[in-house]
Amino acid sequence: MKFVSSAMLGASLATLLTPMVCAAQSLPTRSIPAHDLPVPTTASPAMQKVISLSGPSKAPASVPTTNEGWNKRSNPNPAKKHQTVEMLLARYKLAMREETIAGVHCYVLTPTDAPKTNHGRVLVHFHGGGYTSGAGEAAVGEAIFVAGATRMKTIAVDYRMAPDFPYPVPVDDAIAVWKAVSAKMPANKLGMFGTSAGGSLVLSAVQRAITERLPVPGAIMAGTPWSDLSETGDSYFLNRYVDPMVYQDGLSISAAQYAHGIDLKDPRVSPIYGSFTGFPPTLLLTGTRDLFLSNTIRVDRKLRDAGRHSELIVYEGLSHGRYIAGPDFEETKTALKDIATFFNSNLAK
Amino acid sequence: MKFVSSAMLGASLATLLTPMVCAAQSLPTRSIPAHDLPVPTTASPAMQKVISLSGPSKAPASVPTTNEGWNKRSNPNPAKKHQTVEMLLARYKLAMREETIAGVHCYVLTPTDAPKTNHGRVLVHFHGGGYTSGAGEAAVGEAIFVAGATRMKTIAVDYRMAPDFPYPVPVDDAIAVWKAVSAKMPANKLGMFGTSAGGSLVLSAVQRAITERLPVPGAIMAGTPWSDLSETGDSYFLNRYVDPMVYQDGLSISAAQYAHGIDLKDPRVSPIYGSFTGFPPTLLLTGTRDLFLSNTIRVDRKLRDAGRHSELIVYEGLSHGRYIAGPDFEETKTALKDIATFFNSNLAK
Repeated sequence: MKFVSSAMLGASLATLLTPMVCAAQSLPTRSIPAHDLPVPTTASPAMQKVISLSGPSKAPASVPTTNEGWNKRSNPNPAKKHQTVEMLLARYKLAMREETIAGVHCYVLTPTDAPKTNHGRVLVHFHGGGYTSGAGEAAVGEAIFVAGATRMKTIAVDYRMAPDFPYPVPVDDAIAVWKAVSAKMPANKLGMFGTSAGGSLVLSAVQRAITERLPVPGAIMAGTPWSDLSETGDSYFLNRYVDPMVYQDGLSISAAQYAHGIDLKDPRVSPIYGSFTGFPPTLLLTGTRDLFLSNTIRVDRKLRDAGRHSELIVYEGLSHGRYIAGPDFEETKTALKDIATFFNSNLAK
Repeated sequence: MKFVSSAMLGASLATLLTPMVCAAQSLPTRSIPAHDLPVPTTASPAMQKVISLSGPSKAPASVPTTNEGWNKRSNPNPAKKHQTVEMLLARYKLAMREETIAGVHCYVLTPTDAPKTNHGRVLVHFHGGGYTSGAGEAAVGEAIFVAGATRMKTIAVDYRMAPDFPYPVPVDDAIAVWKAVSAKMPANKLGMFGTSAGGSLVLSAVQRAITERLPVPGAIMAGTPWSDLSETGDSYFLNRYVDPMVYQDGLSISAAQYAHGIDLKDPRVSPIYGSFTGFPPTLLLTGTRDLFLSNTIRVDRKLRDAGRHSELIVYEGLSHGRYIAGPDFEETKTALKDIATFFNSNLAK
C-alpha cells in the first residue's frame, strides 16, 4: 500500500528514481478498466442532473464546410434564440444595440444602472464555438451574463469565422475592435474575456497587441481556453470519456478549418506556444471534468513562468464551459461572482 | 456534435434546462469504457518515465495497528534513509538539528547562507503520510526541499500520530509548536506548509489558531491537502484508476485510525467543513492526476467564498504529491520555485 506516495517519500524517491532526459520513446500506457463514474455530490443538485444526463457527443454524419452550414447547426432557430436573448437582457437589466466597430459587427451591452466606479470601464468579449460556430446572437449569452454580473459596458465581438474566414481573420477582427476601443479610453480600464475558442482568442489578441505595441488591457479572463489546438495535454485523454465534448471527429474538424494549413502547434493558432511576457492580470477558469483542464493550467504555468499575475479556478464537477450553463445554476452564479470580483479588483477605476 | 457545449449555448441552455433543487436521489452514473491512458507528453521526460511505471497500489495483506507497524512499512531502513537525508542537507546547504519544542520532537533546518531579508522568517512544516506514516526522518524530505529553495529557517514537526495517538493529538502537537514559535517572533514573518495529511494539518492548525485567538501565520502552503477524509469530491472517482494512491482499503484505513470514531465529515478531522474566515494568503498545489484534486480546489473555493487570498496551481500530469518526487525532476524544481516565490511575496520581511 503506497498511499503515502511521494508526499512522504520525497527523499527516498530522490535516490530511487534517477531522472534521465531521454529521447522521445514509446512509454507504456496505463490500462483503465471499464467502470462507472458517479455524479459528483459536490456539484449543485441542478448541475448534478445535467452531468448525469450528458453523455459523450457522437461524431456527426456530415461536417459543415461553410459558415452557413455551421450556423444552421449551432443556431437552428434564430427567432427562438432572439427571444432568449431578450429575456436575458430584461433579467440582467441591460440594453443591447448592434454597432459596427472598425468594420466588425458587434453587440454593445449597456447596464441600465452601472455604478459610477464603472464609468469608462469596458469589457470586450469574444464568444466560443470552435472558431466556426456562435455567430450573431447564438453565443452572446456569455457576454450578457458577464455584463450583468459586472455592471460594466460590454462589447461582444461578432468576429468572422472559419471555414469562410480562417486564421488570421478572427484575430484580425478581434484586434481591429480592440484598437478602436483602446484608442478612445485608457486601456487599464479595459478588459477582455471569452470562453473556449473565445478564451484562446483573448490570448491571441493580447499576444498580437504586445507584438504590435498596442495598448494592453488592464485585465483579461480566459475561460477554459482552446490554447492548444493539437490535442496535446493530459486532460485531452484524462477526460476523454468524461467531458461531453470530443476532439477526434469533433473539435479536430474546427481546428483544421481555422488553422487552414498552419501547423496546429504554431503559436499563431495555438497561443500556448507563444509568449506570455507582458501579459496583464489573467483569470483562468476550468473544471475537474474539463477536456481543456490542461489547456487552461498550461496557460497558468506560462504566465507564472513569465512572472505575471495569474488566477486559476477549477470548478468542482464541471466539464468544458459548464460554468456558463445558465443563470439559475449555482455554478454559474459562482463563476459570475468570481469574474466580477476579478475585473473589479484588477481594472482601474 | 455538441462540441461547442455550453460555452456557446449558455443562453439556450438557460431555457432548456430549468434547474430544480431536488432531494438527494440516485442519478445515473457515467459508464467509462476500458481504455488506455497515454503518458502525458507535457510532463518532463524523467517524470513521464515515473508516470509510466507507477500503476495503482494494491491493497495490503495486513494493516498496521500500531505506530511501530506503520514505521516499519514506511521507513524499513532508517539507516539508509538517514544517508539520504544527509545527502540532501549537503546538496541544499542546510544544517539540521533535533530540538524539542513545547514538548514536541522537531527537526530544525537552517540554511547556511540565508539572505538578510529572511532573518526572522521561519516556516513550520507538517509532513504527509496519512496521519499514520512519516515519523522521524522518514518524511523530512519535503522540509529539506522547501528550506533549501526558500533559504528560510524551517521547523519540521515530528508530531505524534495515529493509531497510537489519534485526533486530536496531531493537531495538539502542531498547535503547541506553533504557539511556542509565534510567541517569540511576529507571526506575519512566519509561514506554515505541508503536503497531503500535512497540508490538511496546516488547515486544521490555522482553524484552531483562529478559534483560540492565537497569532495567524503570514502565509501558508497546503499541498494537495487531505481536506476531506470521507472520499467526497469528484477526483476521488475521476482519478481512481489514474493516481497510484487508493482510498478503499488504503487511505480509508488511516482515516479511520486518525478520526478514531469521529465522523469523517466532522470539521475537526476534515477541515474542508470548517471555517476559512480570517485565513492568511494560501498557496494550494495539486495535479491533473491527483486523487486529491477536488480536496484541493474545494479549499480554494472556500477561501474565495470567505474573501481570502488563495493561489491555486495544478501541475500537468502529476498525481498525489508528485511535485516533491525528487530534487532532480523539473516538476519538483518548478514547484519549489512556486513555493519560494509565494512565501517571499507574502511573508513580511
